[in-house]
Amino acid sequence: MESTSILSFENAISLAHNALQSNGTETEVADCVAHALVLADADAQRSHGLERVPSYVEQLRSAKVNGQVKPTIRRVNPSSIEVVANDGFAFPAIELAIESLTDVCEEQGVAVAAIVGSHHCGVMGHPVEKLARAGFVSTMFANTPKAMAVAGGGRPILGTNPIAFACPRAGELDPLIIDTSLSTVARGKIVLAAKRGERVPEDWGVGPHGKPTTDPQEILEGGLNPVGGAKGSALALMVEILAGAFVRSNFGFQASSFFDGEGGPPHVGQLLICLNADEFNANFTEHVELLLREIEIEPNTRIPGARRLLSRNSAIRDGLEYSQDLIDSIKRLSKIK
Amino acid sequence: MESTSILSFENAISLAHNALQSNGTETEVADCVAHALVLADADAQRSHGLERVPSYVEQLRSAKVNGQVKPTIRRVNPSSIEVVANDGFAFPAIELAIESLTDVCEEQGVAVAAIVGSHHCGVMGHPVEKLARAGFVSTMFANTPKAMAVAGGGRPILGTNPIAFACPRAGELDPLIIDTSLSTVARGKIVLAAKRGERVPEDWGVGPHGKPTTDPQEILEGGLNPVGGAKGSALALMVEILAGAFVRSNFGFQASSFFDGEGGPPHVGQLLICLNADEFNANFTEHVELLLREIEIEPNTRIPGARRLLSRNSAIRDGLEYSQDLIDSIKRLSKIK
Repeated sequence: MESTSILSFENAISLAHNALQSNGTETEVADCVAHALVLADADAQRSHGLERVPSYVEQLRSAKVNGQVKPTIRRVNPSSIEVVANDGFAFPAIELAIESLTDVCEEQGVAVAAIVGSHHCGVMGHPVEKLARAGFVSTMFANTPKAMAVAGGGRPILGTNPIAFACPRAGELDPLIIDTSLSTVARGKIVLAAKRGERVPEDWGVGPHGKPTTDPQEILEGGLNPVGGAKGSALALMVEILAGAFVRSNFGFQASSFFDGEGGPPHVGQLLICLNADEFNANFTEHVELLLREIEIEPNTRIPGARRLLSRNSAIRDGLEYSQDLIDSIKRLSKIK
Repeated sequence: MESTSILSFENAISLAHNALQSNGTETEVADCVAHALVLADADAQRSHGLERVPSYVEQLRSAKVNGQVKPTIRRVNPSSIEVVANDGFAFPAIELAIESLTDVCEEQGVAVAAIVGSHHCGVMGHPVEKLARAGFVSTMFANTPKAMAVAGGGRPILGTNPIAFACPRAGELDPLIIDTSLSTVARGKIVLAAKRGERVPEDWGVGPHGKPTTDPQEILEGGLNPVGGAKGSALALMVEILAGAFVRSNFGFQASSFFDGEGGPPHVGQLLICLNADEFNANFTEHVELLLREIEIEPNTRIPGARRLLSRNSAIRDGLEYSQDLIDSIKRLSKIK
């Protein structure tokens, strides 16, 4: 049986922080990144959690991500800001964008933030959740390194290109959070099946030249399938244009991997759109509850994002469970033991 | 064999215009609606074309849609406008919104338009195409009367809730247009299979209480499936909130049908978000071409929306083919023969 340890939030953050800082990340940046990764683990989004630290360190060491650089911000027009991540980590750039978005949105009614030349942005539900807690409705689009075939095609061109959305709910209720990638399944599931030598369902992806396959290794060479075929493929193309071209950053097919130290910076983009609902609908949150109640009384359904917040509450109360192997591997990356 | 006739654009518009006007639609409104329906047919989006005229007339006669009312517009905040459709047709309201959106977006960099208390908005690719031809990037969200089950559920709660997107392309190229509903298939396909007594694939929908079924009649009582299960379901929920709650209009589960004269006005909503790309990326259109070329060289794939524009060009050149039955049934609805 695998040996595990329970870490408190603070200890988990320190663990990541030390590894990042020891490998050339500025203290405040390391704090921000470590916090985002641990919050992902708390929300049971493990693929965006501390298991990323070894690959982040690899990328720091090969100068694929710059741990020293601070993001810069500029007002592009009355309703828009641009944050240049400068091929540093995405999290400090997104944090800077969110601070400004709420001010601009309060003033203009709508605010857009483009994060230029960015990196892996982790759990997309987090930025939109923050905006919802500040009272705003928002959507976020991010493109990711190529992993998905265009519908009909047989090689990875598009990223899995997540879309996130959040809005405030009535009274003391936590925000509604939607956060979904546009591939049938996460790439991580294909990688895991390939490692284990297992077959996967035929709708997960295609082999080279669009060949139908249940072999995960072939899918990694061909491409994940978009959800709903041409529909998910079209939506992923929309995300590429919003997060790549609009944001003056790389498309997924041009971006290097988020997982290793090979190549130059991925230089992807993220786009946030923030809306002030109150000016359109003074009863916005009560209005939203009408629909959520209709869903809540329907058997076997659930409100998106609710399980993440339940998981977070347990993690805050009981700490976070990590494999000892992961803890040890992260510790070995820190000069400070 | 079914008898058909070829109509010119102008004649097809007159046909619809006469039926609408004879049933209490103001002339300018009837022009706008008739033009939108014929353009849908030209783009091979027949389910949003002249075949809607008989049900529109039914709704005019039962006062479910008001053919006399003109939409009103109001600047909600520096970046947003609100168009109140007043339970009239959607098309004149959307047209009014688009005129203002381009001005507001030029000034603010971003512009949002909410269409409140609206009706069937037809082909969503059209409004975003207009904005793209004016030089803007835009997305549009519309909720529709309930037809789709929430993932796991077994009755219709969500609309099929289309998302559209368009952006300008380089040089003389037509805009890129994305326009997709969030159900696995269109409701029309289920209705057709039910009429013909045919079975449908199991992933098209569920029967009452979420029962798996291939019987289209059971799906009409249960619900269409969202694309990608929980993913499409979450995105459709996002659209309900953006087009329903944000826009102060009905949710899909509250809205009456677009297809008959029963009940009050559907009173659904539409939301348009318009962005000025040039201020972020002076080479936006050339940037987009990098990705579209990558897709164009990939065998068996295609650029979304391209087939519609090809179809439109043929229709402009050769006219539009309609069944004589449809032409006759629309003529019978006009007092002016």
